[in-house]
Amino acid sequence: MGAAVPIPNGRFLIVGGASLVGSASAELLLREGAREVIILDSFYQGSRDAIAHLAGDSRLKVAEGDVLRLPQLLAAARGIDGVLHLAAVMSLTMDRDPWLGLSVNIQGTHNVIEACCAAGVAKIVLASSTAAYGYGPGVAGELVETTPFHSAGAPPAAILYGASKIVAEQLCRDAYAKRGLDYVALRYATVYGERQHYRAANALFIIETHDRVHRGERPQVIGDGSETKHFVHVSDVARANAAALASEATDAVLNISGPAPVTTLQIVRLVTELAGKDLEPEHVAPDPRKVRLTSGGAWRLDHAAAERIIGWRPEVDMREGISRLIAWREASLSAAAP
Amino acid sequence: MGAAVPIPNGRFLIVGGASLVGSASAELLLREGAREVIILDSFYQGSRDAIAHLAGDSRLKVAEGDVLRLPQLLAAARGIDGVLHLAAVMSLTMDRDPWLGLSVNIQGTHNVIEACCAAGVAKIVLASSTAAYGYGPGVAGELVETTPFHSAGAPPAAILYGASKIVAEQLCRDAYAKRGLDYVALRYATVYGERQHYRAANALFIIETHDRVHRGERPQVIGDGSETKHFVHVSDVARANAAALASEATDAVLNISGPAPVTTLQIVRLVTELAGKDLEPEHVAPDPRKVRLTSGGAWRLDHAAAERIIGWRPEVDMREGISRLIAWREASLSAAAP
Repeated sequence: MGAAVPIPNGRFLIVGGASLVGSASAELLLREGAREVIILDSFYQGSRDAIAHLAGDSRLKVAEGDVLRLPQLLAAARGIDGVLHLAAVMSLTMDRDPWLGLSVNIQGTHNVIEACCAAGVAKIVLASSTAAYGYGPGVAGELVETTPFHSAGAPPAAILYGASKIVAEQLCRDAYAKRGLDYVALRYATVYGERQHYRAANALFIIETHDRVHRGERPQVIGDGSETKHFVHVSDVARANAAALASEATDAVLNISGPAPVTTLQIVRLVTELAGKDLEPEHVAPDPRKVRLTSGGAWRLDHAAAERIIGWRPEVDMREGISRLIAWREASLSAAAP
Repeated sequence: MGAAVPIPNGRFLIVGGASLVGSASAELLLREGAREVIILDSFYQGSRDAIAHLAGDSRLKVAEGDVLRLPQLLAAARGIDGVLHLAAVMSLTMDRDPWLGLSVNIQGTHNVIEACCAAGVAKIVLASSTAAYGYGPGVAGELVETTPFHSAGAPPAAILYGASKIVAEQLCRDAYAKRGLDYVALRYATVYGERQHYRAANALFIIETHDRVHRGERPQVIGDGSETKHFVHVSDVARANAAALASEATDAVLNISGPAPVTTLQIVRLVTELAGKDLEPEHVAPDPRKVRLTSGGAWRLDHAAAERIIGWRPEVDMREGISRLIAWREASLSAAAP
């Protein structure tokens, strides 16, 4: 058994915290009684808007800092009980700049681990990804934590992203074995929800559909829309992060996915319906300039191990999650309107 | 079709060339009429001994330089037609220092690619590895280039090494797609042969056995010795490197393996016999402190694609290859004796 870091009275550092997952996780940790939550972010991808709703809580500190600069991490980790390491570059950014992506995802994780070891942090929770199963025709069926990494037929950026997450997990595992740093790596499914950004290739199915139907345009579905996707609502991810910190689990890699997979056509129909629009989707061909993350056939990201090991299971289904996302977006859009 | 770089009259840079594969490749390129061969090596792992037999050929230049220092690569790549990128850290070193290993294998490859693009090099041949299929119980059967990466049950260093090779391949693929740099990545099986070193976990089965039987001690076999290994003789690897340069193949990832796999017991018996010793192997338990690269059941690294795409097939079987290795070692040991 490893270190349990209870949330009440705990001191937490969220690296890459001015983000979709970071803001929801910070909110949950504060709500559950954390003594201190430090958000460290370079604001290269993160945004102050994502954490604006938390302002005013004196237990929250926001620091500007880059995972590629070890001294900033060393300073931020001092006196911290548990670290959530979320800072990463995803496939779309990896495609534009592979070297930046590899640096942030690999050297960044290395630096965070060094800072945790130096500061005597009890536990790190790493944001890994289902990209650790890869993409392309090989990915099908029930994906469990021992499923191998498929890459045949996938774009370079997707493979680089997936491999960078495999490396990040193993850096944690190596630090656990050699230096006793407790860790849990959570392989998030596609995260969506309030404060959604445009950087995740799969979450774009939700947000781009909402953009179109909000303007009164017909939503678009690529191909026949039968492609499987598996999402997880950001509030469930925040709960998983807290559960991983608070449990005694260590040296564990766990899938974190929503109640069930969906097809792209189902997502598009659900977003259209929940936005209150009566618009028939139009089927379009894929844009060859865009990185797409496709898999072989139907697949499902099994989360039974997370339930067994950290006592977590998802609570928010796609209907509720998309409703919440749309409510947030429409409120933001109204607030921004003149 | 990509650029063919004929060996006669060609100018070549071998990065990480003061090595087992580098010395054999340089020797072959010179024998086949290359105009110039530059060996760049940091001499961190490489050694001047490995290339001493090539001294005196005025077409060969040896430069000290590190793949982590881009300016040295930029200088070395000027005027070069084809680059062999061999500089890498393997599992045993990766275990001692994961960060060094990831830096050399990933940032090093990035730097070599940048130097190739800047200097207008026509083609790069990347030394990849069968580690791209991973290790552990999942690895069994016929391994073809689309076989996924298995990691469940493997030590961190082995997974980090394999993932670093997957990343290196994809960096080449990305540079090909976006900048037109022709490349062939060769997934070498375990390389063995003259000028063998002690850094490769699997090649140790040959060299450590020879060390023992040479001293008159019984050779050791881990467990029942039924574990599959697939080797390739260094002269065949040198031929594959030359074939990849000279062919029009590009954007290709190819297995490079010997005629057939063997078991660890077969290797140990063959080394003992060819060293002229009559010693029965003793079966021992694995040393838990050592990184071991084990797989599931019987497996074979298929090299049909290499034959189809670059017209290469292995010529040296284990009996001949081990004889050559032992002849070289015994000659070196006699020369070193007072």
